[in-house]
Amino acid sequence: MSSWKEVAQAKRASIRAAIPQKWLLSSVPSVQEQKDVTGKYIQQFLTEREIEITETDAVGIVAKTTTGAWKAREVTEAFCHRAALAHQLVNCLHEIFFEAAITDAQKLDDYYAKHNAPIGPLHGLPISLKDQFHVRGVETTMGYVGWINTFEGVKGTGKERVFESEMVRELRNLGAVLYVKTAVPHTLMHGETVNNVIGYCWNPKNRRLVCGGSSGGEGALIACRGAPIGLGTDIGGSIRVPSAFNGLYGIRPSVGRLPYEGMANAMQGQNSILSVVGPMGTSVGGLRLVMKAILTQKPWLHDPAVHEIPWRSEQEEAVLQLIKSSGKGRQLAFGVYRHDGVVRPLPPVRRALDIMVKTIEKLGHKVIDWVPPPHDYASEIALKTWIFDGGLDVHQSMGLASEPLDPAISTIYGSEPVREFQASEIAKVNVQIREYRKQYSDYWNSTAELTGTGEVVDAFIMPVTPFPAATPMDYPHYDYCTLVNLLDYPSIAIPVTISSKTLDPVDEKFVSLSGNPLDKKTFDVYDPEIFDGAFVGLQLVGRRLHEERLLALAEMLGDGIEGPK
Amino acid sequence: MSSWKEVAQAKRASIRAAIPQKWLLSSVPSVQEQKDVTGKYIQQFLTEREIEITETDAVGIVAKTTTGAWKAREVTEAFCHRAALAHQLVNCLHEIFFEAAITDAQKLDDYYAKHNAPIGPLHGLPISLKDQFHVRGVETTMGYVGWINTFEGVKGTGKERVFESEMVRELRNLGAVLYVKTAVPHTLMHGETVNNVIGYCWNPKNRRLVCGGSSGGEGALIACRGAPIGLGTDIGGSIRVPSAFNGLYGIRPSVGRLPYEGMANAMQGQNSILSVVGPMGTSVGGLRLVMKAILTQKPWLHDPAVHEIPWRSEQEEAVLQLIKSSGKGRQLAFGVYRHDGVVRPLPPVRRALDIMVKTIEKLGHKVIDWVPPPHDYASEIALKTWIFDGGLDVHQSMGLASEPLDPAISTIYGSEPVREFQASEIAKVNVQIREYRKQYSDYWNSTAELTGTGEVVDAFIMPVTPFPAATPMDYPHYDYCTLVNLLDYPSIAIPVTISSKTLDPVDEKFVSLSGNPLDKKTFDVYDPEIFDGAFVGLQLVGRRLHEERLLALAEMLGDGIEGPK
Repeated sequence: MSSWKEVAQAKRASIRAAIPQKWLLSSVPSVQEQKDVTGKYIQQFLTEREIEITETDAVGIVAKTTTGAWKAREVTEAFCHRAALAHQLVNCLHEIFFEAAITDAQKLDDYYAKHNAPIGPLHGLPISLKDQFHVRGVETTMGYVGWINTFEGVKGTGKERVFESEMVRELRNLGAVLYVKTAVPHTLMHGETVNNVIGYCWNPKNRRLVCGGSSGGEGALIACRGAPIGLGTDIGGSIRVPSAFNGLYGIRPSVGRLPYEGMANAMQGQNSILSVVGPMGTSVGGLRLVMKAILTQKPWLHDPAVHEIPWRSEQEEAVLQLIKSSGKGRQLAFGVYRHDGVVRPLPPVRRALDIMVKTIEKLGHKVIDWVPPPHDYASEIALKTWIFDGGLDVHQSMGLASEPLDPAISTIYGSEPVREFQASEIAKVNVQIREYRKQYSDYWNSTAELTGTGEVVDAFIMPVTPFPAATPMDYPHYDYCTLVNLLDYPSIAIPVTISSKTLDPVDEKFVSLSGNPLDKKTFDVYDPEIFDGAFVGLQLVGRRLHEERLLALAEMLGDGIEGPK
Repeated sequence: MSSWKEVAQAKRASIRAAIPQKWLLSSVPSVQEQKDVTGKYIQQFLTEREIEITETDAVGIVAKTTTGAWKAREVTEAFCHRAALAHQLVNCLHEIFFEAAITDAQKLDDYYAKHNAPIGPLHGLPISLKDQFHVRGVETTMGYVGWINTFEGVKGTGKERVFESEMVRELRNLGAVLYVKTAVPHTLMHGETVNNVIGYCWNPKNRRLVCGGSSGGEGALIACRGAPIGLGTDIGGSIRVPSAFNGLYGIRPSVGRLPYEGMANAMQGQNSILSVVGPMGTSVGGLRLVMKAILTQKPWLHDPAVHEIPWRSEQEEAVLQLIKSSGKGRQLAFGVYRHDGVVRPLPPVRRALDIMVKTIEKLGHKVIDWVPPPHDYASEIALKTWIFDGGLDVHQSMGLASEPLDPAISTIYGSEPVREFQASEIAKVNVQIREYRKQYSDYWNSTAELTGTGEVVDAFIMPVTPFPAATPMDYPHYDYCTLVNLLDYPSIAIPVTISSKTLDPVDEKFVSLSGNPLDKKTFDVYDPEIFDGAFVGLQLVGRRLHEERLLALAEMLGDGIEGPK
């Protein structure tokens, strides 16, 4: 029997082997030679036409492909090429299936030629998928060596390379083209993307920094413009963190809005805080396009966990009217949450918060301080749900190939399974979650007295993490994200600015917020030189199931921000 | 310290003491003297006006009270009187607060007099509440002796007799009058209603039979017309069983449709299969009235577990159009599920199924056999969720006053807590639930090929239990109900017929469906003489969150059934 290293090596080689010879780079520069591989750097390997296509956002692409102006095949080939380059530069892919994609794209072109109409609203749009989606023809490893040549770790199920996740079926119906699956940290429970198959996935904007996780391959790929849009998942920040670290928009919808049916996952059946699937991309319009399209497929008829809530244009429209009136009608009101009382955000994130506040005010709307029930209590509860099974699932999955767990993930799951939570202990956590949600909702209701608009706060702004894209192993503080998962609120990461050694100097002195050592550690690790040029994003959080309104608000803010981002 | 018997006795006396002297019966007949205490029997203690009021359904009542034709106070007093009689006859109440109700009703009348308009759509409508709702001024015992003079078993919380459940707040906003809380079996996990405080709650139509459970006090009270409508809860049939056993309509909505926030419950925090709240009453119109009214309160802003799904008139309207066309447009299609392969329904229930099929066909619509994934497997999973904590919560609650557990409930929970499920075992059950839901949904989708209407089945009919209202301790087969909870489908109990010793003779011979001893036991216990006159209901089950459509279909069927019911 092969060692895990041999199996992983063979898989890694097979991923690379799926890249056509013509797209292989003769060499990849070291980080010292080339920190930033996005933009001009990656463009040098592409034709002007390829650059034009791959730097168009999802909305722009379907405007062309659904009207016959661009061929699905040409668009697909351009993104395949750029994705192939991205993978060589930052290790962002787990599965490459360009040939199948190009065949699918050709069929779309044939369909268009015959009917003079697109097959659906996503006709010809390449969409990348986190390696939790099952797609026929390729496997799903989630970065586990032991899942190679299996179906979710089990051999001989008959589902291997055949079964497809529900959303894959819907995306195909809609005309999307699927061509790659993107890297994740093994276990998925990590804000960096590293596993024993592809190794480390770096941030393409600054290859000294992490790309985020767990939808880190998505983040890195889209930052390279190797995809216009992709689908990630989020149980504790896994869409928002890589979106923020890669200068992208990414939405974590509420549970039950988009179909998770038939996807691979870690810790299946933990249902106190559920992972959700959502799009990440270069524009809010792209996120809306994909969500709206999927909802036309009535996913609730095929995934019993999806609520029958179609896209509600009237809710979106109501917000758009307020946006158009620029505060001359009823002002919009935003809460701003500057820190969680535990870890103070670093200077670039604080500046991002200032930029966002100024943007809101410039647009004619209101900002109030957000003073909700304590977030650290919520995070404490949320983190319990991650260890209900004492790490059993994680260690079983790692044990399939006797491969080593990433050290950062070991800080959560140790080196072997420990005592599991009992039913009554889980029930207690569930009650705490329910009570906290109620308190938070009551707080939100109470803001009607504070906004001066006569209405409650429309959404609130907070950091995604207290730092911009981090250096590996340095920042295990997920509390700004986990809170949102506990509350099951929709949240959108919005790119705000870029870390700057001149604009974001080190604080003169450290004043601890909390006495928590993470606060001091965060302060100490900050080096304006290293972070210079890193993306900084924030999240905009809405009330449960308010995705339509939240997207409209995020677009207003994203468009309103001035300066590079 | 008092023994549990003394405490229970004092509480029982205090309930009785809350009945005004003028409404006390000098004696209650034995069951031999008077089996059926509904209808003519109970009417003898009421004025004609009181009979007129209390035998009007909820829709009829609000038609009068919201237009000023009837005074809220007069309506309230009539129902208080009849509820007081009902309790004396069948032990259906845990809390009586007539004075507060009459004061509230007077305020509503004053409001109407001042504004010449009702305060809300339920203005002056008396609504009874299962004893899980917290209402100021009275306590919530759920039949636990140890909860007397506490808040959910805990003393000194400051919430005792002050705190109100979210739905209570909404009902008050809407103009409803609250006046009684109704009996439940301790633990709530039983299809009969018995506890050490009020003893046994009997079926008013036949006091040899059970009233059902766990919302049994509701069922018995409404069967006596001591309430026009009430609110129960359902985790395994607890709305549908007492509705069927008492000749009522009762809806178990999907999770997240109506607010459960701030209610007492057993096994709080078990969240694999959730209890839901729903109305029970004498007409479908009444159920609709209450659901629709509650949704106007935007409960999702006050109970984070409620989905933002307002009443969808357009969905209701679409079904009403099909109903009006009587099969001349697109026919409606119904599945019929005659037995679960485990316990064959008794003759009255089989006859009810035949009646329903004939009704559907008479109305111009289609019936197909319903052949879904095996129900017994689903029930096996569902029942696991009841014992996740090894009975810890049940025994802790019973232990507060060292009171004995009802023998039937002991068959589930034993005499002391046993080993709890571990996180990984619960997770496995959760995965099984998710997979089963998917299979069932796929089966439902597949019926588009079978109905001949071009559409999937609109809803399916099945027994609520394999027997009509049962004799105590005889029928522990809940599978026909638990399936629905596992699937999270809405389901409405519909009164269909009345057991008849002439129409429903004993089968000539027993042929076991399954070899399961319950099948033979059910066959053996059936005695046409004993059951003669007992109500027989069936349930109509719809797709998840399709409450609007399902109510319209249930109304069509209920109205279409001929003969006594």
